[in-house]
Amino acid sequence: MVGREDPGSFDRIAIIGLGLLGGSIGLAVQDCLPDVRTTGYDADPASRQRAAERGLVGQVFDSAAEAVQDAQLVILCVPVGAMGAAAAELAGALAPGAVVSDVGSSKESVAKALAEALPGVSIIPAHPVAGTERSGPDAGFASLFKQRWCIITPPDGADPAQVEALSDFWEALGAKVEIMDAKHHDMVLAVTSHLPHLIAYTIVGTASDLEGVTEGEVIKYSAGGFRDFTRIAASDPTMWRDVFLTNKDAVLEMLQRFTEDLTALQRAIRIGDGEQLFEHFERTRAIRRSIIELGQDDDRPDFGRSDHGG
Amino acid sequence: MVGREDPGSFDRIAIIGLGLLGGSIGLAVQDCLPDVRTTGYDADPASRQRAAERGLVGQVFDSAAEAVQDAQLVILCVPVGAMGAAAAELAGALAPGAVVSDVGSSKESVAKALAEALPGVSIIPAHPVAGTERSGPDAGFASLFKQRWCIITPPDGADPAQVEALSDFWEALGAKVEIMDAKHHDMVLAVTSHLPHLIAYTIVGTASDLEGVTEGEVIKYSAGGFRDFTRIAASDPTMWRDVFLTNKDAVLEMLQRFTEDLTALQRAIRIGDGEQLFEHFERTRAIRRSIIELGQDDDRPDFGRSDHGG
Repeated sequence: MVGREDPGSFDRIAIIGLGLLGGSIGLAVQDCLPDVRTTGYDADPASRQRAAERGLVGQVFDSAAEAVQDAQLVILCVPVGAMGAAAAELAGALAPGAVVSDVGSSKESVAKALAEALPGVSIIPAHPVAGTERSGPDAGFASLFKQRWCIITPPDGADPAQVEALSDFWEALGAKVEIMDAKHHDMVLAVTSHLPHLIAYTIVGTASDLEGVTEGEVIKYSAGGFRDFTRIAASDPTMWRDVFLTNKDAVLEMLQRFTEDLTALQRAIRIGDGEQLFEHFERTRAIRRSIIELGQDDDRPDFGRSDHGG
Repeated sequence: MVGREDPGSFDRIAIIGLGLLGGSIGLAVQDCLPDVRTTGYDADPASRQRAAERGLVGQVFDSAAEAVQDAQLVILCVPVGAMGAAAAELAGALAPGAVVSDVGSSKESVAKALAEALPGVSIIPAHPVAGTERSGPDAGFASLFKQRWCIITPPDGADPAQVEALSDFWEALGAKVEIMDAKHHDMVLAVTSHLPHLIAYTIVGTASDLEGVTEGEVIKYSAGGFRDFTRIAASDPTMWRDVFLTNKDAVLEMLQRFTEDLTALQRAIRIGDGEQLFEHFERTRAIRRSIIELGQDDDRPDFGRSDHGG
């Protein structure tokens, strides 16, 4: 872990996009790196005003160019489909030697968009695997990244000192850092994040659109399992539209495998093969145990929901 | 709400099966109806011993016949596929006028199995829509049913006074009661509970069985969405095998609709139709809000997981 006085570290950081992720980075820097100066910008004037009121960053500017003018690190926290345009807006205003990074959930497409918009600039994409179902400038909080993984995907030829500085930055916010190839990142996230979101969005849609069962009934009896899906299906629609469009190949591949597996279980139900069902269900239990052992979820039953008195 | 001294109410209750549901009923009765006498039985000797140690019921017996001998209400809390056999075991031992109920997640098949095993006996099936991913005699807790729905599915010709007494019993434990036709129950639960479980079991299986992404990576980055699915995919395998086999028709119908909807979103991703994706994702957000407004889930972001410092 490197403090801000180290040669590779960043004293001035600009955050472009002040929603859940951008706002949380701003608050986390104030908590964990109090001497670092933060500036910020959001394309939405109402979000800029709210960000200033909440103090998400030290100073909110009315243009991306002003916000980044003497920043050593610029972090783009906009939907992945908007990365190219956001980068183009600040292209001429970057300080010499500035590093540009991001927090997008797909990495190959973002690396490409940033490289095109910012020729000659040091680009080191990153993805903190953290979030909640909330979005906007009121959603951020300082501890979002604590004990969560941040995946950095340096392009070929990236400066190792800059990669290390970015890695130190994320570790200072409480994250655990992993370096990975962008293509592999996109495959891993397709299965751990993108496919689960797509499935959740689908089932919530299916349930709200039945003729034999009313939406009121679905909501009323949601504690039987359905409600767990509604949480991630409440995530930001723009962000997720962009994720699916930019990580299309990996998502479609994972979806194909999921569909094959679902078809196999469907067949087991149809022919009454209890043994196959039991074996499958027994196997999936073990995964849950591993996730809890590795500290990536809460082990209180039912997520420790407030109605649980156990 | 009716106290135990009312004509229709139950003073002596036998619980057959002392796992999550049976144990929780026993504990809830002690909390909410302290004058009611409870007895219990579990087919597994180790569970009987543990149930006695935890005091899940007033007295644990070594046979179902002994446990039910003077009970006015017998509640079968065994997997739905075991209901018929469990009922047959106590058929000759029931007190005259005893009501037999259950807590199974599918109701048409259970009603049929109980009617066959217990000719001439008053059978009033019920389903408290409550649970956690844990199972066994250590999993139960007294507040499991508070603010949760309990659906009662009286067969044709059921005695209204007995239905009311059962309804009062569940309300005394903190539940909200709804009376419903068994067939409609099975359709509603297929979408709110059975399909979500099947999908969760599937995706957890898919993710653990990839060649390009290791199981370790899936577990490590599960905070991106996957971990929400692992909770319900850790539910009791025997219980869920039986649910899918006994509510086959409704589950297969819901699965068919889900697959159609998934195929439509898959196509939107493939052809790059961002508008369709956005509209779908925007719609599913509203469902979440309704569930929270109706008190059927926790509104803390990220389920208020312990790492959330917001």
